[in-house]
Amino acid sequence: MTIRGLQQELAEFAAERDWQQFHTPKNLAMALAGESGELMEIFQWLTPEQSAGIMADQAQAPRVREELADVFAYLLRLADVLDVDLEQALAEKIAVNGAKYPVYLARGRADKYTQLGG
Amino acid sequence: MTIRGLQQELAEFAAERDWQQFHTPKNLAMALAGESGELMEIFQWLTPEQSAGIMADQAQAPRVREELADVFAYLLRLADVLDVDLEQALAEKIAVNGAKYPVYLARGRADKYTQLGG
Amino acid sequence: MTIRGLQQELAEFAAERDWQQFHTPKNLAMALAGESGELMEIFQWLTPEQSAGIMADQAQAPRVREELADVFAYLLRLADVLDVDLEQALAEKIAVNGAKYPVYLARGRADKYTQLGG
Amino acid sequence: MTIRGLQQELAEFAAERDWQQFHTPKNLAMALAGESGELMEIFQWLTPEQSAGIMADQAQAPRVREELADVFAYLLRLADVLDVDLEQALAEKIAVNGAKYPVYLARGRADKYTQLGG
Repeated sequence: MTIRGLQQELAEFAAERDWQQFHTPKNLAMALAGESGELMEIFQWLTPEQSAGIMADQAQAPRVREELADVFAYLLRLADVLDVDLEQALAEKIAVNGAKYPVYLARGRADKYTQLGG
Repeated sequence: MTIRGLQQELAEFAAERDWQQFHTPKNLAMALAGESGELMEIFQWLTPEQSAGIMADQAQAPRVREELADVFAYLLRLADVLDVDLEQALAEKIAVNGAKYPVYLARGRADKYTQLGG
Repeated sequence: MTIRGLQQELAEFAAERDWQQFHTPKNLAMALAGESGELMEIFQWLTPEQSAGIMADQAQAPRVREELADVFAYLLRLADVLDVDLEQALAEKIAVNGAKYPVYLARGRADKYTQLGG
Repeated sequence: MTIRGLQQELAEFAAERDWQQFHTPKNLAMALAGESGELMEIFQWLTPEQSAGIMADQAQAPRVREELADVFAYLLRLADVLDVDLEQALAEKIAVNGAKYPVYLARGRADKYTQLGG
């Protein structure tokens, strides 16, 4: 299904329940941040190595899937309500980041572009 | 482009810069939460009405687009690293939520499903 | 009790359980952000007016108290592990913000200082 | 200075700028989560070891102090607006957690109390 198709499904889900009144950009941005926080909390006490193996943990894997889905749902919904084309916004961002983080400077470094020198 | 296609583009972007070493699920979950927080901060002092009109604000609209793209990028990347199919996870979640929030109970209410009675 | 006293109590609580190994600054910063997100989620579907009356809601008030305490606990713990004096850091920040947001410019405006003109 | 004293200073700072109108619990909870997210972002690409040494990094240390102060400021402000006694809320929470995480069960384990068995 396309991103647009997923957004329509979520819009119908909200409309059937008369939830559009709650879905202001402000509230959806909070919900998106909240769900991202819940997803992050799953990882907070794990070592990097444990985090890499989390999908092999039968108790945690379904939680991770669910939280990823929640984040995705609110992201799609927020972009829909704001009328932002997520794919196009991402393509633009990748182009901008390609210029900010040229391979020869950014290779193997996690620094912010403002600290890469040049 | 498909979600899979976007993920491949982001994976190449990271690989060219030798950034996979930083892209543990733990770190990507932090980055996703961090970007979601930055997006939310744009809305924090706005009234619900102001938040609904934000894309008409020429100073804020590009920031909103950029932050949405950042959130999307890290969500795609995290799902890729965890090998979770975002579309399928979302479809499952919508089905689960449809059962948790039946229209006749949830209509016009923002309560959590545990408080909907039945 | 002083802030230092509260920090010692929390440090003992962690030490008794051999939890210092988990309490890296990175992990504590995640936990602090996670708890702040949980606190925020309580407010996400509320109108500003509803949010102002939340402590009169007997179901929500104890949740708010608990989440505030969780945020406070991780903030104290993180500052302790980093050896940052919270009170002094706050005093410095208030002085900085007083200069960034002079009363005659900032009065009644939620703009960031970079947009206040002068 | 006491927590109450710090809160009074912050309340005056807001009142002088006529900012109380923006300081609803909802908005302050967003600001608190946003600042916690900014603090967390400083750590996101660091190894646990690098995060433990961050205050020796002269570029990052002042950022960490500032973000800790921002989190503290919004936490104090939110608790003040909600009329919650932070110290008492924390004392209660420590008592609750002491019961949920008894030393003999929780020792050396990062599991949630619901998974500790008994």
